[in-house]
Amino acid sequence: MSLLVTGSIGIDTVETPFGKRDDVLGGSAIYFSYAASFFTPVRLVGVVGDDAPKFVFDVFNGREVDASGLEVRKGSKTFRWHGSYVKDMNEAQTVEVDLNVLAERAPKIPQNFLDSRYVFLANTHPVLQQEMASSLKSAKLIVADTMNLWIQTERPELVKMLGKIHGLVLNDGEARLLTGEKNLIVAAKTVLGMGPKFVVIKKGEHGSMLVTSTGDVFVLPAYPADNVIDPTGAGDSFAGGMMGYLSTQASLSTSTIRRAMAFGTVVASHTIADFSLAGLQAANREEIDARYDAFKSAISF
Amino acid sequence: MSLLVTGSIGIDTVETPFGKRDDVLGGSAIYFSYAASFFTPVRLVGVVGDDAPKFVFDVFNGREVDASGLEVRKGSKTFRWHGSYVKDMNEAQTVEVDLNVLAERAPKIPQNFLDSRYVFLANTHPVLQQEMASSLKSAKLIVADTMNLWIQTERPELVKMLGKIHGLVLNDGEARLLTGEKNLIVAAKTVLGMGPKFVVIKKGEHGSMLVTSTGDVFVLPAYPADNVIDPTGAGDSFAGGMMGYLSTQASLSTSTIRRAMAFGTVVASHTIADFSLAGLQAANREEIDARYDAFKSAISF
Repeated sequence: MSLLVTGSIGIDTVETPFGKRDDVLGGSAIYFSYAASFFTPVRLVGVVGDDAPKFVFDVFNGREVDASGLEVRKGSKTFRWHGSYVKDMNEAQTVEVDLNVLAERAPKIPQNFLDSRYVFLANTHPVLQQEMASSLKSAKLIVADTMNLWIQTERPELVKMLGKIHGLVLNDGEARLLTGEKNLIVAAKTVLGMGPKFVVIKKGEHGSMLVTSTGDVFVLPAYPADNVIDPTGAGDSFAGGMMGYLSTQASLSTSTIRRAMAFGTVVASHTIADFSLAGLQAANREEIDARYDAFKSAISF
Repeated sequence: MSLLVTGSIGIDTVETPFGKRDDVLGGSAIYFSYAASFFTPVRLVGVVGDDAPKFVFDVFNGREVDASGLEVRKGSKTFRWHGSYVKDMNEAQTVEVDLNVLAERAPKIPQNFLDSRYVFLANTHPVLQQEMASSLKSAKLIVADTMNLWIQTERPELVKMLGKIHGLVLNDGEARLLTGEKNLIVAAKTVLGMGPKFVVIKKGEHGSMLVTSTGDVFVLPAYPADNVIDPTGAGDSFAGGMMGYLSTQASLSTSTIRRAMAFGTVVASHTIADFSLAGLQAANREEIDARYDAFKSAISF
């Protein structure tokens, strides 16, 4: 089924204990699209400047990603992020960030994308997220991400946005900041009171948690990886794998969402095994399915 | 089967965001014994001073805990610990600690305990742990805990101790300190190289992990509890539930250890629901079994 994602496309400089990469491909929509495309065709909406390197346009060659929603804006510059995981592999320290084109008007959703049934609104201004949620009238499932910045500066708009979506994906620190609750289950239940039918809390190397309005609580460790090179994009890959799998399923029951989170976890474990997109590019669907089975075994008792 | 534990018995003062309790029962051997006694009879070896309050001797009334290895040493004072979880529910800040009788000679293992088949050596000086491991010649399974202090000050003796036991239980920070490895799977494998057949790494609210010399890797989230009042004793209760269950099983296969860790997780979830021993005292085996099933459901996909 048609899965649309809108989010950032960026040029990253990343430092981890295992090395440094300058000017490599990054951004939430890139990781999400690549991860989701293991499961289903993806429609990408995003914007770059006219300085965007060729690899931005080549990355989805041979993959089922429709990048006709990728706008190249003349006179603008592509989003850039420089982060470091040298001190803490579980939390990036931002060295420098240049919003560039992301600080301008949002990219337009192409007419032929407006019938999308599954939608992921990666982290951006909650007013933009509201507009997109409202314009995608055929959507069966809209899931959004957010970040500290909007929780702190745009809370009323963020809360309005929560009333227009079905699911929210956010990390543990964001869940605590949004709700003022330290306990993550209590925090998730508080978020449910703001509108969404389910909340997925990402805990980095500690896994993830699902709480639904029907009372389901699901906890999942991270995939036990002994080879973590670069955590950049893990959360977006998790969301991509999750939404990609969900888009292929007839029902949106909590057991479907549970399996989707497990696939997201497995896809993210490929992402972090190398810098930038290299981990995902080295993976294939057969390996993902095999690792899904191994993951299931690794948490069974 | 006979399960022996030796560890601390203390009088705690504990502060959490939910209140403060002065002079309540605590200590690794107390939490461990109570937790294990849901599964199997326990033999307790420990020492208190002649100032020990009556509740130290009353706590196991009606439970299958043989406290004939509990020495009351004249002229000595009972171990005291004052800790605070006000800033961080996942890590205690020690406000004050008085080792008192724990800084003196170890308690003696009673003659009729020497045939114990299952042994848990809670955290103490690694030379004492070695002596106990050597004197318990009938032991089929010896598992030990340790702490930062011994890793930093008694590493050679600690490494010798690791050569005399079957399993080590330690927390994530201790595993990293002991091995110099940040990745916990790599750290666990490094510990296996020092002697034990299996390593269990406790990650507090983030669950636990098992790595065995046969190559098994098992990851387990914590029980999703929305009511955490006092984390004191969670790790010792986990170990108690784990060893208590293991003592009832004919085989020590990795699947048995996995189930034992799940029982340990569930017992610990009762401990943290109230101050001191009150959470465990409010539980019973039927509730533990029901929560074990609920836990299994909460992590299944």
